[in-house]
Amino acid sequence: METMIRKFREAVIKQKAFNYILNVTGWDSETEAPHGSFARRSEMLGIISQEAFRLYVSPEYQEVVNSLFAKSDELDDITRREIKKAKKAMDKIVKIPEKEYVEYQKLLSLTQIIWEDAKANNDYDSFKTNLSEIIRYNKQFIKYYGIDNHPYNILLDEFEEDMTMKDYDQLFDLLKAELVPFVKQVIAAEKPRDENFMNAFYPKDLQMLFSNRLMDIMAFDKSHGLIKTSVHPFTWNTSPADVRFTTHCWENQVFSSIFSTIHELGHATYEQQIDEKWDNTLLSGGTSCGIHESQSRFYENIIGRSQEFWNTHFPDLKAVFPEQFANVTVDDIVMAVNKVQRSMIRTEADELTYSLHVMVRYELEKKIFSDEISIDDLPQAWNELMIEYLGIEPKNNTEGILQDVHWSGGMFGYFPTYALGSAFAAQIYYTMKKDIDIEAITKEPNLKKINAWLKEKIHHYGSSKTAKEILKEVTNEDFNPEYYLRYLKEKYTALYL
Amino acid sequence: METMIRKFREAVIKQKAFNYILNVTGWDSETEAPHGSFARRSEMLGIISQEAFRLYVSPEYQEVVNSLFAKSDELDDITRREIKKAKKAMDKIVKIPEKEYVEYQKLLSLTQIIWEDAKANNDYDSFKTNLSEIIRYNKQFIKYYGIDNHPYNILLDEFEEDMTMKDYDQLFDLLKAELVPFVKQVIAAEKPRDENFMNAFYPKDLQMLFSNRLMDIMAFDKSHGLIKTSVHPFTWNTSPADVRFTTHCWENQVFSSIFSTIHELGHATYEQQIDEKWDNTLLSGGTSCGIHESQSRFYENIIGRSQEFWNTHFPDLKAVFPEQFANVTVDDIVMAVNKVQRSMIRTEADELTYSLHVMVRYELEKKIFSDEISIDDLPQAWNELMIEYLGIEPKNNTEGILQDVHWSGGMFGYFPTYALGSAFAAQIYYTMKKDIDIEAITKEPNLKKINAWLKEKIHHYGSSKTAKEILKEVTNEDFNPEYYLRYLKEKYTALYL
Repeated sequence: METMIRKFREAVIKQKAFNYILNVTGWDSETEAPHGSFARRSEMLGIISQEAFRLYVSPEYQEVVNSLFAKSDELDDITRREIKKAKKAMDKIVKIPEKEYVEYQKLLSLTQIIWEDAKANNDYDSFKTNLSEIIRYNKQFIKYYGIDNHPYNILLDEFEEDMTMKDYDQLFDLLKAELVPFVKQVIAAEKPRDENFMNAFYPKDLQMLFSNRLMDIMAFDKSHGLIKTSVHPFTWNTSPADVRFTTHCWENQVFSSIFSTIHELGHATYEQQIDEKWDNTLLSGGTSCGIHESQSRFYENIIGRSQEFWNTHFPDLKAVFPEQFANVTVDDIVMAVNKVQRSMIRTEADELTYSLHVMVRYELEKKIFSDEISIDDLPQAWNELMIEYLGIEPKNNTEGILQDVHWSGGMFGYFPTYALGSAFAAQIYYTMKKDIDIEAITKEPNLKKINAWLKEKIHHYGSSKTAKEILKEVTNEDFNPEYYLRYLKEKYTALYL
Repeated sequence: METMIRKFREAVIKQKAFNYILNVTGWDSETEAPHGSFARRSEMLGIISQEAFRLYVSPEYQEVVNSLFAKSDELDDITRREIKKAKKAMDKIVKIPEKEYVEYQKLLSLTQIIWEDAKANNDYDSFKTNLSEIIRYNKQFIKYYGIDNHPYNILLDEFEEDMTMKDYDQLFDLLKAELVPFVKQVIAAEKPRDENFMNAFYPKDLQMLFSNRLMDIMAFDKSHGLIKTSVHPFTWNTSPADVRFTTHCWENQVFSSIFSTIHELGHATYEQQIDEKWDNTLLSGGTSCGIHESQSRFYENIIGRSQEFWNTHFPDLKAVFPEQFANVTVDDIVMAVNKVQRSMIRTEADELTYSLHVMVRYELEKKIFSDEISIDDLPQAWNELMIEYLGIEPKNNTEGILQDVHWSGGMFGYFPTYALGSAFAAQIYYTMKKDIDIEAITKEPNLKKINAWLKEKIHHYGSSKTAKEILKEVTNEDFNPEYYLRYLKEKYTALYL
């Protein structure tokens, strides 16, 4: 037993080291590696990835994991959780025949380009054969797993442990019934406002200067992280000791950069506040997509788009851009950054309509993996759902079914976690409110006291607790989407009705 | 035989992949990794380095290399050279007992900090015990190698294959006899000039703008490389497909940035112009320290500090800094960047006195490894040589024997290659002059034609030829330091006498 545990520890730390070094290379690829360097890079990474892959499938490792799994009862709580995770991940890998796995990877990399072209040319037909193949592989892989559950539940579980269609239906049924009509009410109540300052010219270096100010407001630890720019903002980390993130700077949309920065700082704060004791275990890093997104959207929307936040920090912003904000009031900003619109894609959606976009794709994914819809019918079904939920019809498939990258990369079951994050955030918010005075803290020079609360309740655990466990322990109840609806209604009623 | 060659190829490409990924991490460490991330990094790199190390010492690899080495005669020329290199590197590793090697590495990492403190406190005594230990280890390791040669020759060979004390003595004896008195002549002839523009204020972002201009002048391929800043400028590469370099920007010393950039662009051009066919062999990369340094110093000094270069590019520089150069002529610049001074350290030395600094350390290293000097006597010996060669006496050991990092890192035999680079550059220069009109090309918008000559004669070979072979083939004679003396005398006579 002890020998097995020692072997398991050795295997884990080696996996960690390979992941570490592949991650560092990934950061370089995403943020600065020159265009012409990627052919050689993929050759070299192929070799290292192969070495890394062996660590997860070698007969020795399989023996260690299986024998410890068989004796789960005798393990301490931490090791038991690790072994459960290791076993789950390993089984999925070893149960898929290597040949099919390789073919599937090839298919994905080809489909990426086919999707890009299809989107550019509004040509769903050129994409649907590959889409169909990707779905077929996923259904086949699910069969190999041999898990007794609905296929879509198995996919959902990959991105959010233990969350099932039952949970998501609870969320989306509520939104359908209550949020869809509420959005109509809000939009009907909107009045035109002067928002020209939103698209004034904001030089990139000054945008970065303000992003740096935001890092201080969020009390980001700069000795253990940094900011850079990239086309698509993201957060990157290898351990709490090294957490980096990017933002983008569009020179005529300063708030795009500001909210990207705050959003990524939410992810980054989570990762920085995890206890280092998890570093060499399988319980390091944030616990799930949904909880991660709850942190980023809590800071971005609940804090970052609040009246108190801008009361406090508008002077900072105005100091950086005195001319652009010469005739702008705090209220102008608060209304502008909370404007509600019927838009065509989630990535540009406001806080209120955001989840309705997610709902569209969720409904379709559920139908696909319940064999209730054909590939040919997807574009039409997409458009109908857009009309039903958002009251807007895509004028073509580029704007509709082809808008997002996820399916071309084989990501089914991931999308719903985007909505889950906001819903988790609201539920956590109402508990936090009972403990600390969020409005008062938001008026302080930085958000340290909010960080501290989140660290104690959520962050420091890393992934040693599941999302469901954390939610239950923090809020004293199971996932309850009513909080999300309540939060949205309270906020937007106050703003608009 | 064929099986062995196949196994050798597989081993080499795996070594390449590990080096690749360690190099990418190194670039990150040197240019942006946050301060607080290094403890975790060293833990993770320790594991990967151990995996990499095994590739060089495993019994299977030893068998492959030894058996192919035994049949060298039957190998093609390329593989024979690779096996020779592999055998040499492997033997050095496997002959040192692992325990001693680990102890030595620990000693080095401790000594780094001890040297820093000793330098800061002008306290040679606190450094000498560790210095003495490092030297003892090096002498012991040389014994383990069991090579029949003078110990210092073995160290020299590590940094510059086949170059011996005989070669270096030939160079330094000439400099001692001819350059030392010539420097005195030049310094006596110097007249005071107005050089205030040298220390005007030059904003960093504009310095980087001009560095970018220099990349175009040198025809650097930006799709396969990039520039960043770091405290100590350096060039980094994993293959010709990815060659990066750094420069520094001191705001009151614009020419320090300019010549750092040109110097590193010399190294970078060499690496970019190597044929990709060497990528997966042991013959990739520049062939030796001396040849590498010859390329950087050729561009920096022979081209970059020439009258023609500034005739052509001063308008570019003035466009970036119109106020700072308002009353400055091309001649002012040429004289200022070729000013000769008795200075205390190589890194700040001008082109003419540079090699005399190198000579000081060479003489001492030779004595150390010939057992002709005690550790206690080194500071005094250093000072005496400084007076003899440069006519200047360090006022303490911080300025003298403690000035440089190399010995604390166990680097003996490396220093002389700094002088060799300049001497190689001059010898190559006189051959190039016969083939192409260097002055005319320097007047063109970029230096592509010079790059092309160097690519054909030197660069594309990678390290498939040794420095000595390249010199012989390009210049039609063996290493001949007379060219270096001739170049310096011609240039500085024209400028000063």
